[in-house]
Amino acid sequence: MSKVSMRGQEMPESPISKLVPLAAAAKERGTKVYHLNIGQPDLPTPQVGLDALKNIDRTLLEYSTPEGYLSYRKKLAGYYKKYDINVEPDDIVITCGGSEAVQIAFMACLDPGDEIILTEPLYANYLGFAIPAGIKVRTITTKIEDGFALPAVEKFEELINEKTKAILICNPNNPTGSLYTPEEMDQIRDMVKKHDLLLFSDEVYREFVYTENPYISAGSLEGIEQNVVILDSVSKRYSECGVRIGALVTRNKEIRDTAIKFCQARVSPPLVGQIVAEASVDTPDEYFREVYDEYVERRNCLISGLNDIPGVFSPTPMGAFYTVAKLPVDDADKFCSWCLSSFSYEGQTVMMAPASGFYITPGAGRNQVRIAYVLKKEDMERAIIVLRKALEAYPGRVEE
Amino acid sequence: MSKVSMRGQEMPESPISKLVPLAAAAKERGTKVYHLNIGQPDLPTPQVGLDALKNIDRTLLEYSTPEGYLSYRKKLAGYYKKYDINVEPDDIVITCGGSEAVQIAFMACLDPGDEIILTEPLYANYLGFAIPAGIKVRTITTKIEDGFALPAVEKFEELINEKTKAILICNPNNPTGSLYTPEEMDQIRDMVKKHDLLLFSDEVYREFVYTENPYISAGSLEGIEQNVVILDSVSKRYSECGVRIGALVTRNKEIRDTAIKFCQARVSPPLVGQIVAEASVDTPDEYFREVYDEYVERRNCLISGLNDIPGVFSPTPMGAFYTVAKLPVDDADKFCSWCLSSFSYEGQTVMMAPASGFYITPGAGRNQVRIAYVLKKEDMERAIIVLRKALEAYPGRVEE
Repeated sequence: MSKVSMRGQEMPESPISKLVPLAAAAKERGTKVYHLNIGQPDLPTPQVGLDALKNIDRTLLEYSTPEGYLSYRKKLAGYYKKYDINVEPDDIVITCGGSEAVQIAFMACLDPGDEIILTEPLYANYLGFAIPAGIKVRTITTKIEDGFALPAVEKFEELINEKTKAILICNPNNPTGSLYTPEEMDQIRDMVKKHDLLLFSDEVYREFVYTENPYISAGSLEGIEQNVVILDSVSKRYSECGVRIGALVTRNKEIRDTAIKFCQARVSPPLVGQIVAEASVDTPDEYFREVYDEYVERRNCLISGLNDIPGVFSPTPMGAFYTVAKLPVDDADKFCSWCLSSFSYEGQTVMMAPASGFYITPGAGRNQVRIAYVLKKEDMERAIIVLRKALEAYPGRVEE
Repeated sequence: MSKVSMRGQEMPESPISKLVPLAAAAKERGTKVYHLNIGQPDLPTPQVGLDALKNIDRTLLEYSTPEGYLSYRKKLAGYYKKYDINVEPDDIVITCGGSEAVQIAFMACLDPGDEIILTEPLYANYLGFAIPAGIKVRTITTKIEDGFALPAVEKFEELINEKTKAILICNPNNPTGSLYTPEEMDQIRDMVKKHDLLLFSDEVYREFVYTENPYISAGSLEGIEQNVVILDSVSKRYSECGVRIGALVTRNKEIRDTAIKFCQARVSPPLVGQIVAEASVDTPDEYFREVYDEYVERRNCLISGLNDIPGVFSPTPMGAFYTVAKLPVDDADKFCSWCLSSFSYEGQTVMMAPASGFYITPGAGRNQVRIAYVLKKEDMERAIIVLRKALEAYPGRVEE
């Protein structure tokens, strides 16, 4: 008899897991693969973080406290104030990456059968936490033609019922790169207040914003302080994906106390990661200016390059470092596989994430891909040429 | 309306969380607190692990793979062979501490309503993973008079029904320090085979064994290879609790592939922790001999000291670094609080974990405490004197 649970069977595979062996085989054949599929920034970790790692001088690598070191939480509270997120150290629970913050927020606040509303395309891994928790994910499809903007309140209200407990936003958004305007954030605030919902706000790309307007955190919205749970991580902010340090931030004491019970069960977040993350709070502004300049350049290069390819359309992302682009293909899953298994141009090909994995609605996003602009500009330019050639050669090309 | 889930409310607090503020207040008053409550070894991390940490020379602290680095899994496969656990690198999934191995095993193999059988007293944090997963924990109470030995097969069979999916053993045992004999392991194997159950085997104290007999891992039992899931961690083995590196090990490919989907959802285990853990596989045997000598001495000092106190009884633990002792008190919860809040002897007191938190059966273990022997011998001796004086002074003393 199968020893795997029903929920284990229902767990989605990563949208790119099927492509990984194809990419490995392509490299095996000597083909260079441009990785447009990954969310791993290539920019260096801040020197203050690397120095803190170098300077660890301990003879015992011990547990920290379940909720994370107070010294780190104090510094984080100062950091959040810069974004008008007025929290105390005790409002912050340190987690093992942003992933654990999502997981604990779901478990602490939602029961099996409860519903949560998200926009799609969505960060696929949310499903990887909702499914084992028995939470029902309801989605509103955002449209590439509108730059994946926030849908009208009415669209949300169509889905709200007595089982609806929460709205989850990812802002700036992975995978679309969209960024909510102050007006859109007010719209969310009013809806959350009217229906007394929880607002889970995934803000791990908070630093990656390419507008002149200040970033509006859900933590700065007035009147819904007891409803907001911020999900955060140092992974992208400081190019520290590997230290596995995130945070769950809420002024709702009941949620915080419950989250800490989940933290006690796993004893402590990583020690070394906390040391690196704490030091990284002092990253000089210059680091972020350089990162900003780099990503704006990459983004501009990518988006203009994509839109220059006949039949391709990408909105201009205002945050994060992804875009979702529409391609003139029958099926982006097939196209992405084909790029790796049956195509190369001057010994090169591209790996992209088919967008179907970021949608729940069957068939949605079938001709879309997610592209991360985490490559150097020269590589990005080269990758765009390779993509253009691939689209010219692809047998499943479809004209609009 | 409360924003906390039912399961969040049901989550147990750590057995010692109520005592933590009392200990802090005692220290505030200038009282020295001997921590007999914690599972944090004070012995140093092996030098090879510390050196690996010092020698990290990266400019980018990046994600690793979801299942963990192949180089580490290869070395681990070699390590396991020493314990007759014949696994390949692909049978190993690296987790964020042993905690995540438990969590993923539960989620990948069990659905809400499924039942799992454990002996109690048990490691309280198992409940912290079973409750959010909706898994029903059934327990068989082991007896202090029998040294918490494995109950007869009949006791298990009384609980087995069509909902029963797994047995979870912790061997050597936290909190009791008991260690299963080869005969007991055969008994478990036969029962698992007869009823086609899963056998989750928490073996994080594998190195801490104080008998002349070789350690029998569940992974070495023949005929149930497809049923066994080993839950492991480097936390105790190498005094590396803070690196948060564990492993889920199984020759059941379906379980392994499902576990990896859960790993993909949280992207990767800690990078730095893996580097330290991988290097630590080369820890010289001498380290373990010293650790063995140290713990045997501490154990002997603790157990003889405890049994010398009138009315106190502790079996002799054969593994791990805990014992559960019976005290001549009305209620160990009250006694442990009293020690911290209302007692001191020559400016000193003791902090212990009341055993009630390790039992599910209401009222069980009411006059028992868990004591960890992770203190230096001199401190242990002193702590035993303080405990003796506390028991003499405690107003709720109960003679047998």
